[in-house]
Amino acid sequence: MTHTTHRLVLEARAQDLLFRQARTVDRFTDEPVPDETVRAIHDLVRHGPTAFNQQPLRMCLLRSQESRSRLAGHLSRSNREKTLAAPLTVLLAVDNEFHRRLPDQFPQFPGAMDLFSEKRMVRERSALLNGALQAAYFIIGIRAAGLAAGPMSGFDEDGVNREFFPDGKWSALLVVNIGRPAGTGPRPRGPRLAYDEVSTTL
Amino acid sequence: MTHTTHRLVLEARAQDLLFRQARTVDRFTDEPVPDETVRAIHDLVRHGPTAFNQQPLRMCLLRSQESRSRLAGHLSRSNREKTLAAPLTVLLAVDNEFHRRLPDQFPQFPGAMDLFSEKRMVRERSALLNGALQAAYFIIGIRAAGLAAGPMSGFDEDGVNREFFPDGKWSALLVVNIGRPAGTGPRPRGPRLAYDEVSTTL
Repeated sequence: MTHTTHRLVLEARAQDLLFRQARTVDRFTDEPVPDETVRAIHDLVRHGPTAFNQQPLRMCLLRSQESRSRLAGHLSRSNREKTLAAPLTVLLAVDNEFHRRLPDQFPQFPGAMDLFSEKRMVRERSALLNGALQAAYFIIGIRAAGLAAGPMSGFDEDGVNREFFPDGKWSALLVVNIGRPAGTGPRPRGPRLAYDEVSTTL
Repeated sequence: MTHTTHRLVLEARAQDLLFRQARTVDRFTDEPVPDETVRAIHDLVRHGPTAFNQQPLRMCLLRSQESRSRLAGHLSRSNREKTLAAPLTVLLAVDNEFHRRLPDQFPQFPGAMDLFSEKRMVRERSALLNGALQAAYFIIGIRAAGLAAGPMSGFDEDGVNREFFPDGKWSALLVVNIGRPAGTGPRPRGPRLAYDEVSTTL
């Protein structure tokens, strides 16, 4: 427990579960991660905020050997083996056509869809930013389920997009392996920047 | 409590604090948000994972009337008044030169810096993605402190960048108001997409 743990309302045990003890994991046990667990994670983290409630994140659960192999061909070498061995791999993507649903998702501002409809670049940036917010909620949710996440951006994006999303509507964002940690545990945590290195007061 | 609450390890009370009861807030009480609280939030959420441990997120705490006014001129009209009235406004940005620190932050892969050094576009995309992950951790951290967040992307990015980051090293990501909710509470929560609408199994 650090000297700041007690300044938060969230209990120390929950702080540990989600952040302080939680670690990115490369090696998992064989214990399966059932759909019900992913549903429960989603049911929690879907409440996280996005701009205009746009919710661009989409999840492809790669459960077949075939889909896992299709992905593996586009991963960096260091990510390949651990992904093929993980009990569950989720390919996170964003829906670049999210704006079509804004009239339902954000009815209080009927003009929201028009902000995006003719601006593919603006839309893609918004989907990337808000999809990444949701990806982070998802990582937190995996930990909330008592599991470990192994998020990876080390893959050939264009290759994955051609392989899985050939119509261009979705774009790959992140690959996340999920399961229970195995073995001797992860390598030591990398150094984190101090508050005074990342913050400034104006 | 929904039928999925009990499937998670995180206690129901913490689920409520961070996701189920937490809401984006527009109107806050006058209670100040001291630096110590922001430090405590950072001390928790800095542990969240980023690619190559790159940690591109930077925080500008706009505490002076002058800095708040400088920002306000670039906000959409609906975001202006609530931002000027919030007890604390944080301008979140990303450091597009994050790669220079990778030799310290990710020593296990000495070549990491070179992946980014001559590719400004790749770097900016990585900073955006990973900065957004960290922004989401920060929002969760605000809630963990018992406070409410009002994150906003409705601002003139180019204008804010010229105003605050004229040398081009940092880029504005998100503006987040922080404080204790006031008044009759937020509007009803917007509808969230169901699991079967956002997930697919391959």
